[in-house]
Formats: sequence, structure tokens, C-alpha cells
Amino acid sequence: MTLTRLLGIEHPIVQAPMAGSQDAALAIAVSSAGGLGSLPCAMLSLDAARDEIARIRSQTSRPFNVNFFCHDAPAENTRRETEWRRALQPFFDELGIDSTSTATAPRREPFSAATVDMLEELKPGIVSFHFGLPARELLTKVKSWGTTVLATATTVREADWLEANGADVIIAQGTEAGGHRGSFLSEDLTEQAGTFALLPQIAARVTLPVIAAGGIASASGVAAAMRLGAAGVQLGTSYLLCPEANTSATHRAALKSDAAVHTAITNVFTGRPARGIVNRLVRELGPISETAPQFPLAASALIALRAHCEKSGNGEFSPLWAGQNVSGCAEIPA
Amino acid sequence: MTLTRLLGIEHPIVQAPMAGSQDAALAIAVSSAGGLGSLPCAMLSLDAARDEIARIRSQTSRPFNVNFFCHDAPAENTRRETEWRRALQPFFDELGIDSTSTATAPRREPFSAATVDMLEELKPGIVSFHFGLPARELLTKVKSWGTTVLATATTVREADWLEANGADVIIAQGTEAGGHRGSFLSEDLTEQAGTFALLPQIAARVTLPVIAAGGIASASGVAAAMRLGAAGVQLGTSYLLCPEANTSATHRAALKSDAAVHTAITNVFTGRPARGIVNRLVRELGPISETAPQFPLAASALIALRAHCEKSGNGEFSPLWAGQNVSGCAEIPA
Repeated sequence: MTLTRLLGIEHPIVQAPMAGSQDAALAIAVSSAGGLGSLPCAMLSLDAARDEIARIRSQTSRPFNVNFFCHDAPAENTRRETEWRRALQPFFDELGIDSTSTATAPRREPFSAATVDMLEELKPGIVSFHFGLPARELLTKVKSWGTTVLATATTVREADWLEANGADVIIAQGTEAGGHRGSFLSEDLTEQAGTFALLPQIAARVTLPVIAAGGIASASGVAAAMRLGAAGVQLGTSYLLCPEANTSATHRAALKSDAAVHTAITNVFTGRPARGIVNRLVRELGPISETAPQFPLAASALIALRAHCEKSGNGEFSPLWAGQNVSGCAEIPA
Repeated sequence: MTLTRLLGIEHPIVQAPMAGSQDAALAIAVSSAGGLGSLPCAMLSLDAARDEIARIRSQTSRPFNVNFFCHDAPAENTRRETEWRRALQPFFDELGIDSTSTATAPRREPFSAATVDMLEELKPGIVSFHFGLPARELLTKVKSWGTTVLATATTVREADWLEANGADVIIAQGTEAGGHRGSFLSEDLTEQAGTFALLPQIAARVTLPVIAAGGIASASGVAAAMRLGAAGVQLGTSYLLCPEANTSATHRAALKSDAAVHTAITNVFTGRPARGIVNRLVRELGPISETAPQFPLAASALIALRAHCEKSGNGEFSPLWAGQNVSGCAEIPA
């Protein structure tokens, strides 16, 4: 079966879920245009997720994807939090900001039994997972609704694992991709390959349909991915300047600037490796910091710093997620 | 003009020059088959290079490429050499090897006026450069022979620079590629992108023909690269198991093993970042070591260690160059 038939879409294009930069509006626009819109739920409460799903259904009868994170909830680690805040203190001092704020970052909770309960009444047709898959009994429940499950692999070994553990479609995420790496079997970033190497090797290995992600930003990019064995593609960065996205003004300005040609995989914003535009925090404490607390705890200590700077359009301490090819970014409807 | 016409070849396939793993034999085989064979000269004396070029010409009338390095010759740095030998000492101790050897690694000399003098009588039709371009007066001399000049870019900025400084063809080297990174404008590895992102952006930026390198290992890979704007492709890893290559027994065994799926960009073998299969030296002192002496000096201190281990087929201290896609490797004629 082709991917378009399997997912019930017109074009084999999935809009990458981008937590923090979009809500139902972008998903509605992409699904209405015949692609697969995605709703990132990792930063939403269960009530908010329910409302957003209802909003999509009220605006389109086309298929859409609901996305969740499957990370292990972190243990609080006071020593590490203290070290991290100490590493950040010079920035607070320099900018004259109070660093004693105890604000916590927006939630990023893993998929749980409570999520399943919330989804059960809605029975979404398509769900995608990042950072692996949920516990077997939760996944079995989701699949019992007839839901098609997409999941991300950053290595051939992860693709293998996902196929053996119940995914219906593999998203092969090359190192070019923006945002969080979907890796879950290893923390060694050197195991991860570029799209051009990863995609054909995953496609040759698994029998499931494979969606290519990372570096795709044009029709010829889609065609090239298909030649490498993809059944479809997932694009995120190219949607970030669309009016239907919630991308912040600071993030939009960075994407339109020359700085956008230089991205890095960094853990300084959340504690987990993710690709974004290199800014001062990445340069001075990253790209990979041994001090950054476990995902997603690293974000809390940055809140006041980030808010202070963004007020004046300064994105030097903000996560400016972007892939290695921003040439598809345009201020046009999705 | 198409790349095949420009280079006078039948198929738009360049065999990547692989110093240390091949000589004229591989170049002859590839050129005879209608691709562009390449002779890596960086590790050859001028006399040896002259002889190898003569050998190619005696075996084929087809075009071939002669490749040189354009790095800055390193300054001896006794302190750094001492530190590097100190870092390696535990391996010598463990294996009971004499570490006081003063053997120097095979030469890796940059393109120079003496090289131009040697080439002048031969006037090769095609020359490629790695690590930038030679000094202007040397390049002008080479181009005065009607020679077509290929040069490697790992970023859009490097492609721009090469176009402005006399290259005729750009080789866009994505991060997937095996062997030494061709970078020359920056040492920041995060500036380098995967083939899927790098290639279309370079192709959109320069007017010169672009050859794609990195992760290509099949006919569909070639087709995909063409869709992304390549005029041709360069393949290296896929030729390493060919009988016409000089790939060592240890290196061949590694390429055929499961270990080949995990490569990293490392500077521990030569002092300059290059992609190879992860082995003990990479794991324990790398992938990137601040201690490794400047290219190519890091290699000397490893000679005795490497030789001792390779005698028993142990490649844990040998450079096992490979790209992120070894699926094209086969023990068949080039």
C-alpha cells in the first residue's frame, strides 16, 4: 500500500510536529492542503490537547497526526540543577537579571496512561512518537483503536527496533533535521547519519514504509528522497515562517538572517540533543554540555534569561530550532 | 556543458582519491570503465607520482584525475608531540611495544612549486584539490595548461570561495563522506552539513557544476544526487573492497564487519578531521582530541602501535576510513 493510501492523504508530505512553534492552526492548514498536518502534544496539558484535537476536527475532515514524546520522566537532581544555574549565572549577572526565579519551563511530559485515557474517547487515526515508543500496554491500547503509529529512527538499529516493537511507519531522521533528535537506543551522536546515508539503509532494512526527514526543502528534495527509498517525507523547518505557525518573532528573525546557515546539535536548551541556530548560549556552554540537566529540566533555569532577551528581540539564549537547510522557509501560507 | 562532456567521461562518476588505499591500478580501472579514476598524490614523492601518472597513461587513453592536498605545512611542535606521545603511552605499555621509535609516517606534503614543476611536463587534463586551493601563482600555472580544476567544499561559503578563486568544478562533500573532510575556511565541524542539505544549497549558489560526495552507494543514490542539483557524483567508500584497491587486509575486514555501521569524524589518526570506523583509539582519545598534533604530524607517533596490531589483524589503532554508507562495498572489480 502506498503511504498516501495508508494515511489517507493526497500528497506524501508530513508536517513535522514542532512543539512550541505551532498549534492546531498549522496542522489544519497542512491537512486541508492534502498533506498530513501534525499536532505536537508534548507541551500541552491533556485538556489543551483534547481541545486542539477538537479544533482540528471542527475545521477539517482530512486525516491529521497527533504527536507525543516517549522520554523517561527525569528524576530531580538538585546538584546538577545547581551546577547548571552556576554555569548560567554570568549571563544573569551581565544582563542584570534576577536568577533566583523558580519558574519552571512549559511542561514536556511523556506519553502515559493518562494520555491514553484522554485519547480513548477521540481515537485519533494517526499518532506519531518521538524518542522511541510508549510502554507495550499503552501502545497496544492505541493500536486497538485502528490507529496508525509513526515513530522516529535516527539509526538503522532504531528502525529495526521500531519495526519489531509495533510501529507502522518509520520516520528516518537524518542529522540535517531541525529540533530534537528522536534517538532512544544510544546517546552517542556519532551513531547518527545524514539523510543521504540513513534513508536508503533503513529503507533496505525494514519492510515498513519509510518517511524521510532532514534537509528536505523543495520539490526536488522530495523527489530525491523518493529515489532513495522514501515512501514520503517529513518537513518541519520549511513551515516555520508560515503565518499559521506560532514561531516567535525572535525565532522568525533568526530564520531570515544569515545566522540561519549555521546550526548545531545542542543540548543546552532542554538537556536533550536538538538542532538549532548557533547563538551565544550554544557557543559558550555547548554545543553539548555535560552540565545541562536531564531532559527537559535544563529549560527551567533559562526562562528568565530568555524572556528578558526576547523582549528586545535578542535570541542569544533562545532555542532557535532549524535544520541544515532553511532555503525552503518562506512567509507564505502552509 | 554537461559534466561528462567537460571531463570527457562516459558516466558522471568520479572515483574519490583515497591516499593510502589505492594507486594507479584503481584509477585505471575506473577510467577504463568510463568513470573518472583518480590518483591520490599526497602520500607520493614527486618521482612516484610521475611514475604513477605514466602508468595510468600507458594503460588507458581515457581522462583521469590527479589529486593533491593544499594544507599548510605544519610547524614542528615538540611540546604537543610530547603530550600526544604521553597520551598514547598506555597503549604501548599495555601491548609491550617500544614507544621510542622515531619513525615518521608516510609523507603528506602540500602542493608546491616543485609539484608544479613535476606536473608541467605531464600537463594533466584534470587535477583535484583537497583542503582549499594552492597559492594563486601555482593555480594559475596549472590552469595555463588547460587543466580542469576540481576542488572540495564542505560549506556553502567554501563553495563560494572556490568559485571566486579559480575552481572549475565544486565537489560538495557532505558529512556522510569517508576520509578527510576537505574543509579549509573553518575548523568548526558544526558548520558542515549532510549531503541532503549541502548539495542543493551549493548547487543553488554557484554557477559551476557540482559533484556530490557523501553517502552515495548505489544507482538510486546517483539519481537522487542528480535530483538535488548534482552534475555528477564522487564515490570513495564503495571502491574500497575492489581488487584494484590497495586497502589493507585489516581495513577490508573492518569494512565487511558489523563495526562498519558506526563511523565518526575524528582527528586522532592524522590531526585533521576525517571519517572512519570507530575503533579503540577513536573511542579512548577521540573522536576529536585537543592533544593530537597538527596535520599530518599526529600519524608518526602511531606507527609502531599500528604496525604491531595490524600484524595480527587488529585494526584498533589504524585509520579505517569509511563513509556513513558502506552498503555499496563489494569485492568486485571497480
